[in-house]
Amino acid sequence: VKSPVGGSLDSQAFRNAMARVSAAVSIITTDGPAGRTGVTASAVCSVTDDPPTLLVCINRASRHNAIFKANGRLCVNTLSANQDHLSGIFAGLTKDSMDARFAAGAWSELALGSPVLVGATASFDCEINQVREVGTHTVFFCRVHEVQTHMEGSALVYFDRRYYNVRAAAAQPAGG
Amino acid sequence: VKSPVGGSLDSQAFRNAMARVSAAVSIITTDGPAGRTGVTASAVCSVTDDPPTLLVCINRASRHNAIFKANGRLCVNTLSANQDHLSGIFAGLTKDSMDARFAAGAWSELALGSPVLVGATASFDCEINQVREVGTHTVFFCRVHEVQTHMEGSALVYFDRRYYNVRAAAAQPAGG
Repeated sequence: VKSPVGGSLDSQAFRNAMARVSAAVSIITTDGPAGRTGVTASAVCSVTDDPPTLLVCINRASRHNAIFKANGRLCVNTLSANQDHLSGIFAGLTKDSMDARFAAGAWSELALGSPVLVGATASFDCEINQVREVGTHTVFFCRVHEVQTHMEGSALVYFDRRYYNVRAAAAQPAGG
Repeated sequence: VKSPVGGSLDSQAFRNAMARVSAAVSIITTDGPAGRTGVTASAVCSVTDDPPTLLVCINRASRHNAIFKANGRLCVNTLSANQDHLSGIFAGLTKDSMDARFAAGAWSELALGSPVLVGATASFDCEINQVREVGTHTVFFCRVHEVQTHMEGSALVYFDRRYYNVRAAAAQPAGG
């Protein structure tokens, strides 16, 4: 798909192509003076391990966005395959209250106090270092202070707008 | 794993936790006045669809980094499961020359001229909009001008430092 001359590539064509890029699914949480919230995101990536830094992109139109900024901290909780129901709940599909959304999972916390999802494949307890507005989204650059991993369990992968289960133990490595 | 008081989380602990976050694998390519190059990356994410924008993180120590910057354009080619051998080749594991690396795949091009991998699940032909240095890595913010997708074929997923095959047609969606 090509952008028209002098124009921009169609947003739908871009989203369709991004659907062909598999991704982990994470619940991004925060708790602090501005309140507790959580939102589903797949736009998470590692930036550098020195100092340990990741980034997360969150829609500016989302009511969660201002809460993350005000609290200045967040936790990235990457879902295990058996936590796929939380993806829809924290994406707002069920229209549950925030308290009801959190009630659907089990939570603990690390040093910075953001909700840490029990059984996530990995949780990253972060301080927000810098924010950058790009079009419709905010890019949060986050310094990772503490991590927690859950070594059993399979990964939840989103691809072609469906969820898949990557079984760490039993999965077939790609042939090569 | 907790960072020591007043200190930083250990880089190795951070990398171990990031290994528990599944990711697509892409070959990032460019061609232009500064030459042709390609490198394997998993730190790719969608930023906003208006205007269509993605970002890629590439090590500053990599010799490819300056070539991307000088050419001002790049293409993100997300690998199909049957292209897993290209991941190692473009990560430099085989120590092949750049010409030999490209000879291991089939390539075309779109409007901006960066190498486009035939059979990739998706290719994003981009102009580099902005670069931001963060620790050891450069974050390239890229405006997507054109996309190409390959709708058959399975996705290559990297998880727990191994490759997995997410079969779009036959795969079992995660239960829920």
